[in-house]
Formats: sequence, C-alpha cells, structure tokens
Amino acid sequence: MRFLSDNTASASTEIVDAIIAVNRGLEPAYGDDPWSKRLDQAFAAYFATEVRVFTVATGTAANSLALATVTPPYGAIFAHAEAHVVRDECSAPEFFSGGARIIVLPGAQAKVTVDALARALESNPATVHTVQPAALTLTQATECGTVYRIHEIAALAHLAHQHGLAVHMDGARFANAVATLGCHPADTTWRAGIDVLSFGATKNGALGAEAIVFFDLQRVADFELRRKRSGQLLSKSRYAAAQLLAYIESGLWRRNAERANALALRIGAAAADRLQNPVEANEVFMRLADEEKSALRAAGFEFYDWGAERSGQARFVVSWDQPDEDVSALCAALSRIVKAVNLR
Amino acid sequence: MRFLSDNTASASTEIVDAIIAVNRGLEPAYGDDPWSKRLDQAFAAYFATEVRVFTVATGTAANSLALATVTPPYGAIFAHAEAHVVRDECSAPEFFSGGARIIVLPGAQAKVTVDALARALESNPATVHTVQPAALTLTQATECGTVYRIHEIAALAHLAHQHGLAVHMDGARFANAVATLGCHPADTTWRAGIDVLSFGATKNGALGAEAIVFFDLQRVADFELRRKRSGQLLSKSRYAAAQLLAYIESGLWRRNAERANALALRIGAAAADRLQNPVEANEVFMRLADEEKSALRAAGFEFYDWGAERSGQARFVVSWDQPDEDVSALCAALSRIVKAVNLR
Amino acid sequence: MRFLSDNTASASTEIVDAIIAVNRGLEPAYGDDPWSKRLDQAFAAYFATEVRVFTVATGTAANSLALATVTPPYGAIFAHAEAHVVRDECSAPEFFSGGARIIVLPGAQAKVTVDALARALESNPATVHTVQPAALTLTQATECGTVYRIHEIAALAHLAHQHGLAVHMDGARFANAVATLGCHPADTTWRAGIDVLSFGATKNGALGAEAIVFFDLQRVADFELRRKRSGQLLSKSRYAAAQLLAYIESGLWRRNAERANALALRIGAAAADRLQNPVEANEVFMRLADEEKSALRAAGFEFYDWGAERSGQARFVVSWDQPDEDVSALCAALSRIVKAVNLR
Amino acid sequence: MRFLSDNTASASTEIVDAIIAVNRGLEPAYGDDPWSKRLDQAFAAYFATEVRVFTVATGTAANSLALATVTPPYGAIFAHAEAHVVRDECSAPEFFSGGARIIVLPGAQAKVTVDALARALESNPATVHTVQPAALTLTQATECGTVYRIHEIAALAHLAHQHGLAVHMDGARFANAVATLGCHPADTTWRAGIDVLSFGATKNGALGAEAIVFFDLQRVADFELRRKRSGQLLSKSRYAAAQLLAYIESGLWRRNAERANALALRIGAAAADRLQNPVEANEVFMRLADEEKSALRAAGFEFYDWGAERSGQARFVVSWDQPDEDVSALCAALSRIVKAVNLR
Repeated sequence: MRFLSDNTASASTEIVDAIIAVNRGLEPAYGDDPWSKRLDQAFAAYFATEVRVFTVATGTAANSLALATVTPPYGAIFAHAEAHVVRDECSAPEFFSGGARIIVLPGAQAKVTVDALARALESNPATVHTVQPAALTLTQATECGTVYRIHEIAALAHLAHQHGLAVHMDGARFANAVATLGCHPADTTWRAGIDVLSFGATKNGALGAEAIVFFDLQRVADFELRRKRSGQLLSKSRYAAAQLLAYIESGLWRRNAERANALALRIGAAAADRLQNPVEANEVFMRLADEEKSALRAAGFEFYDWGAERSGQARFVVSWDQPDEDVSALCAALSRIVKAVNLR
Repeated sequence: MRFLSDNTASASTEIVDAIIAVNRGLEPAYGDDPWSKRLDQAFAAYFATEVRVFTVATGTAANSLALATVTPPYGAIFAHAEAHVVRDECSAPEFFSGGARIIVLPGAQAKVTVDALARALESNPATVHTVQPAALTLTQATECGTVYRIHEIAALAHLAHQHGLAVHMDGARFANAVATLGCHPADTTWRAGIDVLSFGATKNGALGAEAIVFFDLQRVADFELRRKRSGQLLSKSRYAAAQLLAYIESGLWRRNAERANALALRIGAAAADRLQNPVEANEVFMRLADEEKSALRAAGFEFYDWGAERSGQARFVVSWDQPDEDVSALCAALSRIVKAVNLR
Repeated sequence: MRFLSDNTASASTEIVDAIIAVNRGLEPAYGDDPWSKRLDQAFAAYFATEVRVFTVATGTAANSLALATVTPPYGAIFAHAEAHVVRDECSAPEFFSGGARIIVLPGAQAKVTVDALARALESNPATVHTVQPAALTLTQATECGTVYRIHEIAALAHLAHQHGLAVHMDGARFANAVATLGCHPADTTWRAGIDVLSFGATKNGALGAEAIVFFDLQRVADFELRRKRSGQLLSKSRYAAAQLLAYIESGLWRRNAERANALALRIGAAAADRLQNPVEANEVFMRLADEEKSALRAAGFEFYDWGAERSGQARFVVSWDQPDEDVSALCAALSRIVKAVNLR
Repeated sequence: MRFLSDNTASASTEIVDAIIAVNRGLEPAYGDDPWSKRLDQAFAAYFATEVRVFTVATGTAANSLALATVTPPYGAIFAHAEAHVVRDECSAPEFFSGGARIIVLPGAQAKVTVDALARALESNPATVHTVQPAALTLTQATECGTVYRIHEIAALAHLAHQHGLAVHMDGARFANAVATLGCHPADTTWRAGIDVLSFGATKNGALGAEAIVFFDLQRVADFELRRKRSGQLLSKSRYAAAQLLAYIESGLWRRNAERANALALRIGAAAADRLQNPVEANEVFMRLADEEKSALRAAGFEFYDWGAERSGQARFVVSWDQPDEDVSALCAALSRIVKAVNLR
C-alpha cells in the first residue's frame, strides 16, 4: 500500500476521456490548436480575472520558468527552507534564471512568516556587491501539508511588493489547499497578491499537465522564449490543454482534492498524538520510532522518512485514487502499532 | 487539408491503448515504475546492443540535453545550417550547455559532408582562445526530407571521432529514415558511429514521448542530474514509458513511417519537375511560384513557405494519419495548378 | 623582432607616470575614488556627448559585458566571421549573455556589409522558435587591419536600428582607426549610430585598461550588476582610471596610434604586391609562400600565420613601441626575400 | 582617516618597482612572458610543493573560477553565511559555475565548524532530485577578522574529502592569516587539505594581482578555458606576474601583513571591552552605540557599520599603508569616546 507520493497516482477517467476526445485529425501544433487557444479564457473564468496561461511538462519547469521570468540572473529569490524549489529541484531555479540565488527562510510548518521575510530583506540589502531581492515564492499547500491562510499570503505579498519583489506561488497541490480553505481560487492567489502561479494538475488526477498562470500580465514579457529554449513548449499541445480544461471545467480539481484531503484527515485522526503538523491537505507527517516504522513497513505500508535522519518523521501522502481500504488498513495499523507515547 | 507539420498529427490507437493499459493503481514515480524500468532492455533489443534510455518531454529537450551531456560550456557543436537545433530551438543548445557554440556547416539537401566537416575542423583549431570542438550533430531524416546513407554517417562519425568529437543524431524523424533505408535501426546509429540519439516518437504517432538513447554508455555520466534540473524528469513516468514501449515493440514506428513516406512519394511524383530535394522521408519540398502557392491555398491546402523569402520553396509534410484523400486531392491540385515550367 | 601582436607592447611612460601619481594614500575602492568618478566627464569631453563609462580588466570582458547588456539570453548577435568575439574569445559572449547565439556574417576585409546584414536579418526572422535578433557588433579597426568608413558604419547602424538591434563596436584598436580616418572620435561612434563601445587602451600603450562606453544611456540598466558578478569590478579602481584619463587627456591615444599606423604603412609599402588587405591601421596581412615565411623567421622575425592553413597569409602587427630598426629590418628583409610573384 | 577597507590601500614601492622593471620591450602576451612562466616555480617554492598558478583580475573572479572548476552546475558549495562569496559577490559563484547552489552554514566568528558541516552534509543528501555536494569553501582570514587554526582546517578538509568535496580557500587576506599563525604557507593550505586557493595580493600591497593556486593538480583540467571565456586571461600578463613574484619573493607579503596586523591589535587593545571578535588579522569588529559611532565619525574616522542594522557593530580595517598616526588617533578617540559599558 503506497503512501509515497501523489505522483504515484493514476490519471482520472475524466482526463483520459478528454485526451481521447481531442485525439482525432490534424490540429495545429505548438499551442495553436483550439484547446490551447481556449486556455486563457477558461482560466480567466476559473480565477475570475484576466490571466495568461502556459502549459509546461513538469512542476519543476513551472516553478523555475515562472521564477526566471521575474528574477534577473543576479536576483535573489526568497523561499522557505523546506520548499520544493530548494530541496527537490536540483538547482533548476538557478539553471533557468542564469544563476539567481535562493535565500532560504525559516518558519514552522514550512510556512514563510512576515517576520522571517522582513528580517531577510533587512539583512540582504541591494548594493552593487549583492544579489538583488527579486522574488518571493510560497508553496500552497506547503511541503509539510499545511495551508497558508489567505491573510497570511496577503501580508507576505504586501511586504514583498513594498520591496519590489514579485510573488510566486508553487501550486503543485493548489487544489488541495483551496479545498481546505473552502475559498474561491482567486482568494488565495491574485486577490491576495500572487503575481504568478505554478498550477499543478498532475498530482491531483491529470496524466501530465502543469501550467503557469500569470496574474500580472506585465510579467509575461519574454516568458514564451524562455519556455521554448528550455524545451518546454510541447508540440502536440492539444493533449495538455485538453487535460487542463477537463480538470478545471468539470470540477475534477475539487472532487479529487476533497477526497484525498478527507482520507488524510482520517489518517491524521488515527495518529493524533504523533502529528508533526496539522493535517490541512493530503499529507500526514508524524513522529514514529524506528521500530514503529519497521513494523508498518513489514505490514506492507510504503512511505518516506522525512527531515534530517534523526528527526524520526514519517510522511504519508494520500493520492486522489488511494483505495479506501488502504487508508482503513493504515489507520488500523497505526492504532495497533503506534504506542501512545509522546515522541516530540 | 493540413500539410504543415507532422506535429499536427494525432496519436495512434496503439499509443492511447498503451496509456490506458498502465492507467491503474499507484505506481512509483520518476522512472521507478515497471514500464520505465523496462526501457533500457526494450531499446537494447530494438537496437541490438546495450543502451541507456531516458525519456524527456520534447525533441528540443532531447537534442539539447544530449548535446549538453557531451559538450562542455566552452565547446563547439558542428551542425548543418538547416538543422533544427540551429533554426528552430531558440538557443536551447546554448542554454542547456551553459553557452556552447554552434558552428554551422553548409551542405546540399541539409546534409553535412565529410569535406565540410573537415574544413570546419581545420578552421576551428583548439587553443585557449577558441571554443573547443566537442560534438557533431546529424539530423536523420534531415530538415529537407533527405536521408543520410549509412556510409555517409559512418564516414562523418569516423572523422568526428578522430578529432575527439562525440556524434549525436537528431532522430525526430528517425523512423522515417530507417523505413526509407530499409535497414536495421542499429545500422544507421551505433554501427555507423552514433554515440547518442534523440529518438523521436511524437511526430510519428505518439501522444508525447521523446527519448535520449546513449550508445556510448560512458557519456551518460551526469545526464540524469542535467535532466532533473531542466524540468525534464517526468513525475508520472509510466505514461511516457508505455508509449515508447508500444511504439517500438508493436512495430508501430515502422508502420506509421512507411505509410507517411509512401504518401510523400505520391506527392513527390505529382510535382516531379519542381522537387527541390529528393523525397526520402515524409516531407516534400518544391519550388512554387507565388501565384501557384496562392492557388493551392485557395483550394484549401495548408503548408509552409520555406527558406529565405524569395526562394519560393514550399514544404509539405505528410503525417502518419494524413487522410488518403488529402493526398489525392493535393496530387490532383498540383497537376492542375502547377505549370510545367522549370523554376530552378 | 616581434610582430606577433600589439599585446606584446609595453606601457607608455605617460601611463606609468599616471599610476605613480595616484599611488599615495588611502582612497575609496570600487569606483568611488576621485579618478574613477571623473571618467564619465572626461569621456564626455572626449566624445563630445554625455556617456557612461565603466572600466573592466580585458577586452574580452568589455565585448562580452557590453553585448550581454543589450542581448537577452535568447538573443542573436550578428558579427563578422573574423571578429574577435567569434574567433578568439572562447565563447565568452555566450557565457556572459547566458547563451545568446552569434550569427556570423561574411564580408571582404573582415567588414560587415549592409547587404550581408540585410540577408541575415531576412533569413533569421523572430518567431517563438528562433533566436531573437538583438545586436550587431562591428570591429573598428577590423581583425584584418582595415577600417570602416563613417558612412559604412552609419548605414549598418541605420539598418540595425530599423530592426531593433543595438549596435556595439569592438574598439580594441579604436585609436588606430580614428587616427587613420582623421576624424573626431564621435564621428565613428555615436554620430554614426554606435550605442555601446568597447574602448581599448591596453594594446595602444596602457598597462592594462579597458572601458565600456555607453552612448545610449538607457542601455546601462543592469550593467553594473553584470560587471560585479563577472569579477570585473576592480577593487583598486584608481589605477585603471588613472591610465584611461592619461590616455585620452594627454593625446597619448592618438600619438601612439599614429606612430604604429605609420610604421605599418612602411611595411605595407615594402610588400605592396603581396598585400591581402589595404593597410589601414597597425596590422599588415600579406600572402607569403612557405619558404618565404621560413626565411623571414630564420632572419629573426616573429609573426603569425593567418587564416585557414593553406591560405598562406602572414600577419604582422606593429606595436606602439615597435623599434624603428625592427621595421626597417623587416622592410629590407621583405625586399630581399619576397620574390615579385603574384601569389593571389 | 579611512578604516573602510584594505582595498583603499595604495601599492607598495616594491610592487611599483617590479612593474617598472618589466616595462621594457615587446614580450609575449597571455602568459607566455618570462615572468608569467616562472609563476608555477616561484609559488612551488613559496608553498614547498608542486602547484599550478594562474593570475586573474579580481578576488571575486579567483573565488568563482576556482569554485566553478571543482563544482558542476548542479553542485552544492558549502560556505559560511558571512563569507565574501555569499555576501559580497553578487551571485558570481552561480554565474561562473552555471548555476551551482551555495548552502550557507552558521558558525561563530565567521568560521565553519566540523559540526555545522556534518549537519549540512546529512541534511543535503545526493539524490537525482537534489544539488550534489561538491565543494567546501573556507575564508582565511575570515570576514570577521578571525583566523582558522591549522587543525580546524585539517578537520574540516578531512570531513569534506570523506564526502568527495573539494576544499577551496578564499585567501583574500591569506598573508594576514599566515602572519598571525606564524606558520609556513603550506601549513594552512595543502598540508591541511586545501585543494585550491584564491591567493590575494591586492589588499596587501599589490596594485592589482590575484592568483588561483591549484594544489590538487588534477583539478586544473578545464580551468584555463573557463578563465579565458570569463575575460580573466590578461593580455599583458607580465605586469600581474611581476607583482606576484615581487610580492612573494621579496617577503613583502609578510612585512605588509605583519604591520597591518600589529596596528589592528593596537586598536583592539583600545576597545577591548567592546570587541565582537578576537583581533587575529587586520580587522577590528566592535560594538558601538549609535552616538559613539556618530562621535567617531564627527572626529574624522571612516568605517563601516556591520551586520544587521540593529546589531550595532562597527568594522575597522587596517591597511598595510595605514599611517601610524591614524591608528594612534583612533586609539585615543576610542578611549575618549567609548564609555566602559558592556554592550553585548
């Protein structure tokens, strides 16, 4: 039973059907097909504002291209120390930007705080000898399965904008966050000050479809050339576009996210004493002793150790298509195996 | 009727079926799924030699990552002036390699010749002041719809290797070339001296699946890190793997290529007096007067002008799924519209 | 007797004296010393217009930083095939620009022509798939010792500007060119449409001092950060500034250039039948048979073979401090050794 | 009276004399002059081991080129958070390396500790998703004016080498550190495990001369091409070489460092209660109240505030040519102005 990552999930039926539906005849390539051309409009409806939308192949590409578009090669990008761009993208932001610097920020539950950002801005003044503060990136939901509240984003974006920074959101699990907040997608993005969003669909039911959504239309500028030269302009663009349209227009994004979030809450409830972070999306982080981990693995559960080796955390990710019985089995196993000991 | 590009083609039924077949349950991500893990073996069988195979999202990425793996940032890449890496990839090779130089070579029918390469090597000596010759890239089939003969590749690779260059093949239309040559895939690649191949499936029936095939296993080295940091490591890797497996194992690659090639030959026969290049793959280049182009377009045919504006060429690309009636209509229109005048 | 390069020259007395004059006491670093702060004003007087001037360590850095400032990473730079940025800077333009492409142009005597530029612009249209034409670079005097006439530069700059290109001049031998033209430094730069100039002093009498002069002040933008991050912001900036001030304000630039040019003309006259190019600066290119080269070398003359190996050219560069007797000896040897045979 | 930086210093008489001594006649360029060719041998004698030595224009270039030579573009460089490469080089390491990541380490007095490095290595494992640990850089003397003991360097280098990292030393103030340690230059470099050194002479009496010293000769590999393409290969190389030879062979390096260190100790003694760090080189960091700073500045002393704005530190740097009376005046002023209050 796999709780390794929502990247292990399959694609939803709605997605496969959408692919099949557009799979006939000769259609213009490189974004000139009718479905790609409808993306701006469809996402404008989804976000209730004018946007520019571009598909790319991966979330790493989405993050790095978005950041490279708003950050000069001598710029600084502020990010939480646990962010995917910091931990899991093998210097992709540096590559795409031509050598920008990521400055990492501390913060509980993988959240950047206004205070941490303010301190970082103060200790990174812009002179000719230093990297130039250029962007703030926030992950929603975070790498620790928590969710920024709307007012938290607004406060961070406000401070960032005061200092001339662009604000990017890594929305690899955007749907999970919106489902938890119960808000409109606009509320946690442009209405709160987000300039550009990495909109992830792959983890939450697509076959392979990521998008970059620009709310600040001035920032698009040279984006398309950067996308092309990084090998991220898909030739048969209709298939990615069809996925994204089905994802946002059928409500699939919300259905899948709500299901995964609900299952994660069940697991969280079964390990309440051991939760490292509140369960606010589709991930559960808990403190487990080595023997407890071994017992769970012996019982057939796959999951990742998390954090520095001695921290003893385990991460369980619930996919949109996680079988109910996997979750029930995990809850039962946790009740059985995990002793009621406070490991903090 | 679209003859714009084989990127306008749809995906073959075999490909869609393969995607559906793997679309169940939770499977490891990032290349650890069973289908991705079988790629090396399947391509070893296809090429009759040990290989390392890696999927990427686009042909531009395949070319640039392959070249960046064998070229230092101060290296020189020799390429035909008409090559896709030169004309149509928006400086992707420079981006991925960290600033390597492409040195363009002349040559009829978009083919590099031994003589042109020898002259270029002679006039680009390696000193501390110069770019260091590092790679030769050949396009098979070429951007002009012609196909290198096996002995031509062997002679070029021999000269390149004598000078320490790696030899890359851009195989965006590899299947079309092999179908024309009637050879084993090995004959036009490693047996002729190719070190690394961009293996394209997208144009020829896949939904979206490109691969880099390393024949020189020593060259893989740091490839995987370069792929990751360029956002080309697909998370749900099973879908690309499934496409590639179906493509090479079902014979689809050859069937689709043979059909497109045959249709192209029919068009070529209908415009025999006007052919700019021999028809050796699925592309037909012909000289047309402006009024002839206008008449064809008025009759509903879509195609690109080619070459410098005043050269008067037109490019017709036949897709694997081009309707027979499109081709028949085009042949009839050419007979009707194109006057028997030698435009050369 | 060395005729290898004007990089073999020593520094003029005026330059050493200027260094000694500023070598006392503690002075602000990184361009805040009084001499560095006077550069803009001094060069404004020299060029009779407002400019921004920045020192760098080498001519390669000057060229590449200037080009990187006006060219995006996906941009194209048009340059003559013989230009120093093409032949002798080991992909520095690509490095500094983050992967821009140099597109080489043909042209007799190492000069770009309006026709060649026009054809290159036509065959390099700007689409999302292509590099974006961004800059034209001209070398004055050229790598073949010839000099662009003012109207030639003006016509090239006019065409370039019509297409939105910035125009850069590599002035490693700028003084030699101005001395030959007998014009005001403004005439061959901003008045003819040059936007940014690499102003070389090192070859012509400085100890080590190069500058970038921006005539288009809008183009400076992010230059200073690019200079810093490439390790080209000199800490003890007073010494470079003192050299440049002495060079332009004492008339040294013209005196040294006139002397070298005059000596080159003497050599040219002694080999009039064999001149490959007219002698218009301090370099003489002549066609010599192998046995003639050997005889000259046996007689103690050092010089470089030039061009592709079989072309049989020899390059003689006259330095500002070349002893008169070296030149007399060379003229005598040429008369003696070189047979009156037309080798073209 | 300037205590801003040792970059404000002039050049020693020995240095100017050495420049004048080589300033005659035509000499080969680009490192082929007799003085440049003697550098390897002279530094081998200085360091008592075989080395390769290369001159560059600035300390930033020395650091970044050295690091780029030992770090792939997807590599990680571990550095103290206060290091010059982190704080004062405007992302030069990222630029030269093609996008490597700097991972900052904490540590009192700007020193990396074995414990901090061990923790960083543990929390930065090398997978295909992460930057690959590649280099450790140590600053000797540190940015806080402290000096690593030989055993500290040895322990850090040992740990780094165990993990496959190269070890670089930023020796912008190398002479000051060796003078304080009273050791042989070998002791704090290759004998302690340093693989490559940025050897600074500019701050300590040269006019402008920095070198990169490779102790691990295997690491040189592609260095010379990287130097060339970054515009750091000086054409008139004799002048930098002459400075370096005079600097190490005349004992100037030690004389100048000892004088500056001794003066710094005098200042340290005058502010003993307020020292932020022990005075171990030519820099004095002290805690001063705002009104104390104002009073010192009103009395004519120039110095930088240091650290985050509210930390209240002041940095006084003593140059090799600092007038004795400046130091005496500063000591007197400190005694008069600074109240005996513990500000920690």
